[in-house]
Amino acid sequence: MDLIGVLHLDELSHGLANLSMFPYFEMAHYIVSVMALREQPGALEVSRVSPLACWFSSMLFCFGGAVLSGIMLAEPPVAPLSNSTSVLMASIIWYLVFYCPMDLVYCCAALLPLRLVLSGMKEVTRTWKVLGGVTQAHSKYKDGLLVMIAIGWARGAGGGLISNFEQLVRGVWKPETNELLKMSYPTKITLIGAVLFALQQTHYLPLQKHHLMLVYTVFLVVNKSRMMLTGSSASPFATIESALYKTLFTGYSPYAALTGEVKKACIDNGATNGTASATKESGEKRSTGQQSPAKGQSSSLEAKEESENAATTSCKKTN
Amino acid sequence: MDLIGVLHLDELSHGLANLSMFPYFEMAHYIVSVMALREQPGALEVSRVSPLACWFSSMLFCFGGAVLSGIMLAEPPVAPLSNSTSVLMASIIWYLVFYCPMDLVYCCAALLPLRLVLSGMKEVTRTWKVLGGVTQAHSKYKDGLLVMIAIGWARGAGGGLISNFEQLVRGVWKPETNELLKMSYPTKITLIGAVLFALQQTHYLPLQKHHLMLVYTVFLVVNKSRMMLTGSSASPFATIESALYKTLFTGYSPYAALTGEVKKACIDNGATNGTASATKESGEKRSTGQQSPAKGQSSSLEAKEESENAATTSCKKTN
Amino acid sequence: MDLIGVLHLDELSHGLANLSMFPYFEMAHYIVSVMALREQPGALEVSRVSPLACWFSSMLFCFGGAVLSGIMLAEPPVAPLSNSTSVLMASIIWYLVFYCPMDLVYCCAALLPLRLVLSGMKEVTRTWKVLGGVTQAHSKYKDGLLVMIAIGWARGAGGGLISNFEQLVRGVWKPETNELLKMSYPTKITLIGAVLFALQQTHYLPLQKHHLMLVYTVFLVVNKSRMMLTGSSASPFATIESALYKTLFTGYSPYAALTGEVKKACIDNGATNGTASATKESGEKRSTGQQSPAKGQSSSLEAKEESENAATTSCKKTN
Repeated sequence: MDLIGVLHLDELSHGLANLSMFPYFEMAHYIVSVMALREQPGALEVSRVSPLACWFSSMLFCFGGAVLSGIMLAEPPVAPLSNSTSVLMASIIWYLVFYCPMDLVYCCAALLPLRLVLSGMKEVTRTWKVLGGVTQAHSKYKDGLLVMIAIGWARGAGGGLISNFEQLVRGVWKPETNELLKMSYPTKITLIGAVLFALQQTHYLPLQKHHLMLVYTVFLVVNKSRMMLTGSSASPFATIESALYKTLFTGYSPYAALTGEVKKACIDNGATNGTASATKESGEKRSTGQQSPAKGQSSSLEAKEESENAATTSCKKTN
Repeated sequence: MDLIGVLHLDELSHGLANLSMFPYFEMAHYIVSVMALREQPGALEVSRVSPLACWFSSMLFCFGGAVLSGIMLAEPPVAPLSNSTSVLMASIIWYLVFYCPMDLVYCCAALLPLRLVLSGMKEVTRTWKVLGGVTQAHSKYKDGLLVMIAIGWARGAGGGLISNFEQLVRGVWKPETNELLKMSYPTKITLIGAVLFALQQTHYLPLQKHHLMLVYTVFLVVNKSRMMLTGSSASPFATIESALYKTLFTGYSPYAALTGEVKKACIDNGATNGTASATKESGEKRSTGQQSPAKGQSSSLEAKEESENAATTSCKKTN
Repeated sequence: MDLIGVLHLDELSHGLANLSMFPYFEMAHYIVSVMALREQPGALEVSRVSPLACWFSSMLFCFGGAVLSGIMLAEPPVAPLSNSTSVLMASIIWYLVFYCPMDLVYCCAALLPLRLVLSGMKEVTRTWKVLGGVTQAHSKYKDGLLVMIAIGWARGAGGGLISNFEQLVRGVWKPETNELLKMSYPTKITLIGAVLFALQQTHYLPLQKHHLMLVYTVFLVVNKSRMMLTGSSASPFATIESALYKTLFTGYSPYAALTGEVKKACIDNGATNGTASATKESGEKRSTGQQSPAKGQSSSLEAKEESENAATTSCKKTN
């Protein structure tokens, strides 16, 4: 708290907390979201074949979080449609990004400096969305820490979490990959934000809300800018994640070796054992033509991340 | 209004508006819906393997609109099941259409004159369903024009809109096609109806409700009969649609040419660009064995339309 | 009633009805559910690649019924998460079953005597869940016998009914099979239970609730134990089902023959007929590489059943 006082950050955090997302930040969110859709493989083709499916997909990119959290709390998933101004704004942006003569809007917005600003502004809306989800869940489930995390996460990263069904609208179906199997950076950072805000809301985290908002927003914006400028998709948590994973989910090395031996024994003794079939299955799957989830997802998700990073460098030479 | 007065249509429209859908029109809706299911490829096989899956599919064909609009408004999707009379009626019709000895019921109902009458009556129920959906949404969202359109559409064309999931019940999965990617005629006409009724409800359309009901119903019935008699699946809006599409979604021809050139420039400059990959992707997709959504859907939807039209000519020589 | 009186079963049934499921029976349910997940092909691989997807899958196995019945009644599907104690307990069990050093927990629980007890206890919770679902539906829809059956069934067999979507979390997609197309034994027995409890609730079945609970629970436990001990997956209702199926869904043999002839006539007369295409389709499907639902499902479901039965014999020699 003292550090914040010394740096005169208290006023700044109050100012940020009172910032209105409407209209500029929301608009940036819609532009970046619709551009992300446009950069999905096959999206441009769909936009020519069926503008309606393309529009619906765009709305899921823009309002996916509200739709998903609505379903999870048994509130009408059509509710976002009732906010005419937002939908109209998102629809105009969708139209301009996909169908603007000479493709001016997309090519301009894809210029690195402009895209950097828009992406930064979009990240700011994430804080508001996560906080909104946590607060909404808190008003329904007083002590439901897990519910608050789930709703905050869904609200902030909804577009990613429902991507399987968003793709289905466009006639694409990739069951072997989803955001739970291999989380992308935005999904991860949103989950961390949801945990932090839920802990703050239940007073487990001794921080004031506007301070947490400031810290989280600054982290989001700085990190997103760094990733866009360096073109790296390396998560800043890679080391922590890896350590956590090794500690919790593989056991210490001596145990791991032992586990392996026990498992081998299990396999030798029980031929029809589920453990055995699971271990050997990668080979079988390949022979039946079905892609292993672990492999399939990584390649397709990498492609998605690449396209996101690549997009920052595209179109700039044409202007 | 004057024209309506002159033609003594006011009384007629009042009479129509007071018409009860229960039981005859509803029954016609169930018969035509269950027959449409039976004519889906693979449905007869499923009816032998698992009567329960077949029954559940039939209920989705009959009550799909109510289920979908229920989910969208966060009302219990099981609600249609609580109307025992309707469910019993639909179940008896399902049983007779699929399992009647000597297949008498299906073969009779498939006779062209009878099917013409039943299809006409089913179209009448569409007006009521769309209006019901719009009214229900209006009672929840006073100014939500888009919500009213969405719910009216969902209620009137629910079976089609959830067809991916209805097929999943029968073990069929066709992700490359859905009603948003390529709308069938019933889905299109229901959307237009939902727009009209929503505009009427919000007083943007200066028409009385019962007049609109009459006009819309007559259009539905006349057009359906025309399509069944001529065996044509040509939409009456094809010209308008095409003009609208050309105006809005491709740009004027000089611009279109320019857009193409700009796009080509984009592609040349940014090799990893999303635009480029999307444009070239049809070739790649074919080589990986995945069907292009644009191609795959059209063939399967045409098959569906053909089967609907063909059905009117089948079975009649056996009686 | 007299028989129950003579055997002093009245007290026993009252005692059973007052039994608390928390914590021991619930814990047994979680253990058996998580072990069933672990024995799914590919689950162990997923548990290494993405612990989060594995945890989410486990929660769907443990709380699938509550989630599904929540969605069906438009109540928040996240509600189970708000019960922190249950979620914590299920999460600890998930962790121990998947990641315990030396795989001790799984190997112990998979020992036949222990697994027999745990499975028996899990079956007891089924009675409570079905009854809970029926009661909940009864409080919303007084006369909705079908709704009560549906919700009771969903609550008791939810994990199975949503298995397609649970698999999707793990990157597996098997559209050609679902519990409606080929019901497994637990789904079947839960449906029967839901029908019985719904009939009892609406007083069509002249039995007292606690007596029905006793009878149903004993049947569940005895039958499950018999199946585990003999390793047979034969349903005790096979004969009744087969008789019912032959009576209702194929017609008597003379009719069946006639139906066949009529159908043949239909096919000959209408070449584009839906009936014809449905009958011939198995051949076409095979050539396009898509598996026939009827064939595909049986093989994959048999594999699942086998793994369930096989699991009782695995790991026991390693201890």
